[in-house]
Amino acid sequence: MTISMYQASVPVFSGVLKNLSHVLSKGEAHAAANGIDPAELLATRLAPDMLPLKAQVQIATDHAKGAPARLAGRDILRIEDVETSFAELRARIDRVRDHLKSYRPEEIDGSEGRPITIKTGKLEMSFTGQQYLLAYAMGNFYFHVVTAYDILRHGGVPLGKADFFGRG
Amino acid sequence: MTISMYQASVPVFSGVLKNLSHVLSKGEAHAAANGIDPAELLATRLAPDMLPLKAQVQIATDHAKGAPARLAGRDILRIEDVETSFAELRARIDRVRDHLKSYRPEEIDGSEGRPITIKTGKLEMSFTGQQYLLAYAMGNFYFHVVTAYDILRHGGVPLGKADFFGRG
Repeated sequence: MTISMYQASVPVFSGVLKNLSHVLSKGEAHAAANGIDPAELLATRLAPDMLPLKAQVQIATDHAKGAPARLAGRDILRIEDVETSFAELRARIDRVRDHLKSYRPEEIDGSEGRPITIKTGKLEMSFTGQQYLLAYAMGNFYFHVVTAYDILRHGGVPLGKADFFGRG
Repeated sequence: MTISMYQASVPVFSGVLKNLSHVLSKGEAHAAANGIDPAELLATRLAPDMLPLKAQVQIATDHAKGAPARLAGRDILRIEDVETSFAELRARIDRVRDHLKSYRPEEIDGSEGRPITIKTGKLEMSFTGQQYLLAYAMGNFYFHVVTAYDILRHGGVPLGKADFFGRG
């Protein structure tokens, strides 16, 4: 037995995004209960040159929809970055999770060796599908999901590790 | 083609830990250059009830050594939590990365269906090897690695996403 590329990607992205939505719900409830402007919480960042909570959530969903598309050779679903509320960010997550359901395992399985090139600014990186998923896409995805959680924690939202796993 | 359980675990843990060591080096250099007590930076946390930087690094290494051991059915390498400096934390990372080299792929490959039970406090969680690796161990590992990075960023260390990937 081995793990398929589908199993290592789509269900992981979908499950972690579900937990991120849960964490965001707790952030929204905390703001409401404490008279905090939700827009202020969404604009919170951990350092002046880091992206705020809203962007962390947007980029997390971008990796979750981008990685399966690149592995399957599909066009990447475009979603404009227009969200201004917790509800809209959760709707974006729901939309990406719905979209992920459209992938059949056989579209992604076998993509281990598929050449994938990523351009970010001047940097061009070439991967096999497996390297791309395990080293690049998952790392980026978790980076933004955990940073979103960390921003909420830093903002005083009562969260624990169980919430990160959707159990809180 | 598919991904093996070894490929999805040992090289990922080792590579991400290498990058974490790089990020810690930058934190140490920043403290030295700015007259910041390194012990103060290691004690920094994002919320009063979150663990400080030092513990985030220790726990990240614990997941990196614990997951392959559980998948292979080996005893988990014990390391006491005694580090008090950036150099000692980097030495801990090096020790775990060296230890990871002792795993032969055939010890971990085929562990997808191995029953794995994790007890944390009152909670007992049962997984297959694949669920454990993809949903639990990787999530926990990245949680602590990214939170360590986020604490350093919040502490003013000049880091960027490239550093998270060991390129900065």
